[in-house]
Amino acid sequence: MTDPLVVFTPSGKRGRFPVGTPVLTAARQLGVDIDSVCGGRALCGRCQVEVGEGSFAKHGLASTAAHLDAITATEMRFDEKKGLPAGRRLACQALLRGDVVIDVPQESQVHKQVVRKRAEARAIALDPVLRLHYVEVAEPDMHEARGDFERLKEALEAQWGLSELTIDLPTLRAVQPKLRQGGWRLTAVVHDQKRIIATRPGFHDKAYGIATDIGSTTIAAHLCDLLTGEVLASAGMMNPQIRFGEDLMSRVSYVMMNPGGEKELTETVRGTLNALMAQLAAEALIDANDIFELVFVGNPVMHHLLLGIDPTELGGAPFALATDSAIELYGTEVGMTAVNDSARVYVLPCIAGHVGADTAGVLLSEGPHLQDETMLVVDVGTNAEIVLGNRHRLLACSSPTGPAFEGAQLTSGQRAAPGAIERVRIDRETLEPRFKIIGTDYWSNEDGFAAATRRIGVTGICGSGIIEAVGEMFLAGLIDADGVIDGGLAPRTPRLVQEGRTWTWVLQAGEPEIRITQTDIRAIQLAKAALHAGCRLLMDHLGIDKVDRIRLAGAFGSHIDPLYALLLGLVPDCALAHVSAAGNAAGTGARIALLNVQARREIEALVRRIEKIETAIEPRFQEHFVAAMAIPHKTAATPELAKAITLPVPKRSSTTGDARSRRRAPRA
Amino acid sequence: MTDPLVVFTPSGKRGRFPVGTPVLTAARQLGVDIDSVCGGRALCGRCQVEVGEGSFAKHGLASTAAHLDAITATEMRFDEKKGLPAGRRLACQALLRGDVVIDVPQESQVHKQVVRKRAEARAIALDPVLRLHYVEVAEPDMHEARGDFERLKEALEAQWGLSELTIDLPTLRAVQPKLRQGGWRLTAVVHDQKRIIATRPGFHDKAYGIATDIGSTTIAAHLCDLLTGEVLASAGMMNPQIRFGEDLMSRVSYVMMNPGGEKELTETVRGTLNALMAQLAAEALIDANDIFELVFVGNPVMHHLLLGIDPTELGGAPFALATDSAIELYGTEVGMTAVNDSARVYVLPCIAGHVGADTAGVLLSEGPHLQDETMLVVDVGTNAEIVLGNRHRLLACSSPTGPAFEGAQLTSGQRAAPGAIERVRIDRETLEPRFKIIGTDYWSNEDGFAAATRRIGVTGICGSGIIEAVGEMFLAGLIDADGVIDGGLAPRTPRLVQEGRTWTWVLQAGEPEIRITQTDIRAIQLAKAALHAGCRLLMDHLGIDKVDRIRLAGAFGSHIDPLYALLLGLVPDCALAHVSAAGNAAGTGARIALLNVQARREIEALVRRIEKIETAIEPRFQEHFVAAMAIPHKTAATPELAKAITLPVPKRSSTTGDARSRRRAPRA
Repeated sequence: MTDPLVVFTPSGKRGRFPVGTPVLTAARQLGVDIDSVCGGRALCGRCQVEVGEGSFAKHGLASTAAHLDAITATEMRFDEKKGLPAGRRLACQALLRGDVVIDVPQESQVHKQVVRKRAEARAIALDPVLRLHYVEVAEPDMHEARGDFERLKEALEAQWGLSELTIDLPTLRAVQPKLRQGGWRLTAVVHDQKRIIATRPGFHDKAYGIATDIGSTTIAAHLCDLLTGEVLASAGMMNPQIRFGEDLMSRVSYVMMNPGGEKELTETVRGTLNALMAQLAAEALIDANDIFELVFVGNPVMHHLLLGIDPTELGGAPFALATDSAIELYGTEVGMTAVNDSARVYVLPCIAGHVGADTAGVLLSEGPHLQDETMLVVDVGTNAEIVLGNRHRLLACSSPTGPAFEGAQLTSGQRAAPGAIERVRIDRETLEPRFKIIGTDYWSNEDGFAAATRRIGVTGICGSGIIEAVGEMFLAGLIDADGVIDGGLAPRTPRLVQEGRTWTWVLQAGEPEIRITQTDIRAIQLAKAALHAGCRLLMDHLGIDKVDRIRLAGAFGSHIDPLYALLLGLVPDCALAHVSAAGNAAGTGARIALLNVQARREIEALVRRIEKIETAIEPRFQEHFVAAMAIPHKTAATPELAKAITLPVPKRSSTTGDARSRRRAPRA
Repeated sequence: MTDPLVVFTPSGKRGRFPVGTPVLTAARQLGVDIDSVCGGRALCGRCQVEVGEGSFAKHGLASTAAHLDAITATEMRFDEKKGLPAGRRLACQALLRGDVVIDVPQESQVHKQVVRKRAEARAIALDPVLRLHYVEVAEPDMHEARGDFERLKEALEAQWGLSELTIDLPTLRAVQPKLRQGGWRLTAVVHDQKRIIATRPGFHDKAYGIATDIGSTTIAAHLCDLLTGEVLASAGMMNPQIRFGEDLMSRVSYVMMNPGGEKELTETVRGTLNALMAQLAAEALIDANDIFELVFVGNPVMHHLLLGIDPTELGGAPFALATDSAIELYGTEVGMTAVNDSARVYVLPCIAGHVGADTAGVLLSEGPHLQDETMLVVDVGTNAEIVLGNRHRLLACSSPTGPAFEGAQLTSGQRAAPGAIERVRIDRETLEPRFKIIGTDYWSNEDGFAAATRRIGVTGICGSGIIEAVGEMFLAGLIDADGVIDGGLAPRTPRLVQEGRTWTWVLQAGEPEIRITQTDIRAIQLAKAALHAGCRLLMDHLGIDKVDRIRLAGAFGSHIDPLYALLLGLVPDCALAHVSAAGNAAGTGARIALLNVQARREIEALVRRIEKIETAIEPRFQEHFVAAMAIPHKTAATPELAKAITLPVPKRSSTTGDARSRRRAPRA
């Protein structure tokens, strides 16, 4: 009699195995991707499969009957304890009796896809650097002297194919008591298939990781389940280094002027990271001791300060990084006390003196190097980090946009926070403005605005608000193409006020007064010219005139309306539909590196082949900069853009997609 | 014209190179072993060679003239600063002009031999795990963004062929300032050709290591120059754990009865290690910050306590080690604060529950696995660790000899220390004894003894003293073959005193009285029977009746007279000339592992193939034990031994080799 044929879906892998072979064994021999933590002992329930009853014919099998043993007592016990959905079997327990089609559901696959919110983003395959392995270990035997650790290693090799494992000393110390507590059964937490970083007596199936983006202003972190890829909790905190200086260079100056000051900056950010991680564990109701893996991204200064490296060299030419390699170490080496003592850290590589590990994260998230289209990715903070390219070539630079886009150093400017004006429209006829603030859905001219903002108040104008204000001022004729406020319109509106030789426009006359001065407009012009010039410089190097797609990353990038970004010429011309927000792409990249070890190798190789352009030594940067000061940049007046601008202004801004999700994202 | 021919001696390697080739370059291309730290920059002076002027003919060269460029200005500068012996050239500076024979002196070879004191011991080839590499590093360049660490790596790869180097975080932190301090010249301390553990600005040629044997009683350490292999200082200290229990098992009991007690024991031994290392650095007048490598050996309990591993499992069957692998870690992980913060630690592997890393050290030192002869190596402490074998097979066991050999728990017993009786002779006619104490060269019946011992005093009898006393009592007829003190001789000597039903022999009647009771003799019989039985058990397993060579290791082994060891049957019969002391072989093994990285791989592989015999579960051990109680063991009465015993007793004991060197060795 021929052995039963088993066909696995969706892989289509197939083979014949003797009657009585467990489905999991057959799957492994065929290289079918089925998860398991317990190694086939009906403990973890990760190897659930379904019998594809009616689908025999299409797989070309003669019989249409499914042939597995009846459900076992072991599976019934598992069902009682943890629940086994109807129709599901544990692949480790179900034995082959005859030809059968076995469907491996997505969640039972080792390299399962992690769901991402935005459809356009690249999918994440779950393949974490850290795995749990349950083993049964031989007891010590006086006839054959071997250490307990060596017997554990032998078990991991025999039962999981892991060879040449090493162990941390603190973990080694715990091996003997844990083996005995667990009755010679133990779950090993194995890092990169090489090193045992922790053990748990008996069966244990909890392992978490945290992906963190350390921004100059905000630190955002996501707690993920390393076994499912799920995000269990997300949280953000202000970067406490702000008290040493709002922007990066003032923090570097602090270090230069206060010897040893980098230690203060390092300690303060590590303290906040620990608080943030403890908060995440508490929110997700997990044991922080089960957090074994941390991934960090950040700009070069944040990167160096996290690691305790003096950032002084980043403060002046030639802007030398201490290292541009990815870094692997122990959490304890960088003061991470809120997670497991053996937790490992992976820090994405910096790219150049002004292009950080955050940009490496953006690259992982946006994947320009995986596409034929030429993509421009812009992450705007105090510096804009700009990447341009496709699967063939990739270039990166940083451009000194200054703090204006973050609302800083403007007359009525403020950081994006509840109360800040984020949207502005100006009636072309009456020249009267209306606006929206962060924290409500009402425009200022709508009923309900007063009630909705009673507690928040209008506190200032943030980066995206000033962009729209300047854009609308231009469309309404309040400023000319050179950015000069036109005092000639003063007879038509009381909001134009003369101050010395220039004019100021008053967006809100009440308390507080929100004003946009000529100086404010100059600051925005300088910032947008710098950003534009950086983009053009990369386009020159790549030898192109037009980009296929633009992604606006980071808090500012996610909040500005692409329409106004194009109108003011923050970025080069591009079809409006191909300009979109990328959210916290740096943080997403950190999450990808947390969940997929191959992504680490990918970004490490990629960073090495990126062409780094230093704007400071490129004469053409200055030329582009001067040319980009005007509003609108001459090439911006495309018919498509012109059409978009004449569209009726919607009651609720929906030009940039889902306003709700944008409002929930962290703000710079 | 043919290129000049160069012949290197002693290797005999030869080749032709263009005129103007530096001798060092030619040597490297031919694979000739010439040392260099500075990489050919005339800084380190390690590549000194001599021109073999007159020896041309024997190498088959036509010309008899040596052809090198005249001594260079660079070499003259080196000579002024550091001195260049007459006839010596720096291989990196001397350029080939014509055919020449170049002699590479021993001290200029990378794998130079380290001189060992005892001629019979195996030679140590210097090949430390840690090397210094001087490099010139490219300055940062805005046109090509690379991290400082990456440029350092590139320099180490280009100039030293070291690839894939990694770095410790604290060392990474220092790379930028050190590169700038040294004007882009730096010396890297590289561990195992893999990891940069420290850097020094400019040229640096100091690197030290310490080999330490942690005994239950004494800790002995040697500070070595890793560039020459030389021992710069040696020191010993008492193991402070003694206050938790004299012997191993009482320390394990302390831990078992005091939860967390292992932390106390660990801290106390680490504190002493730090004090010892600081003392060594001070004695050798070196900077402790240049100590980068530490090697440890010790019995399993000492091994576990150094690492902070609870030794409870070693206190009872099945005597499971936490690990039997060698361990590599950072000094900071085991609390080593007296050396460089990045210093690495290597701990030799334990072999079995009672056979420790100290025995692994003994194996490296004595090398039974490298010999055709069958060698028995015995290291006696509270437990005797016994190894037997040759290049084909190797067996090990431990035997519970108890504390008698260390002078403990005997009526007048004491540890070997100044004042302790270490040698005893009894006149066969008068039955009057004479003795020697540690600290003087006089026998007690010699003129000058009283003066020499006035300050020390006679304080007790140590292990080697009691062995000789019992042996001499037997030869003088004071005890019979069963170890019973013969009261029938009381009329002939007042030193025999009846106590209840047994007799006691008084070695010294004065103050203090030194007595040997029947119980003391029984204790020695039990100890020597255990030792003998362990040896016999291994011989049974190996299937032999006689061993070719016996090495007595450790403090006790080095102090006892082989004659009496054979007489009393501590060890099986062997030609007296083939029984000898091995000194602190465990410590020597640690030093070998410190100086030669291949020795580490050798002992790791060897430990895996040793056959471990557990005496506790071997019925034949008990049989051998009972049979070995008698004195002399029946097979001990060989004609050779009988002849040796009748020899006139020398004024100064010289039967075991150099008495002086033994007196300087640490004592248990």
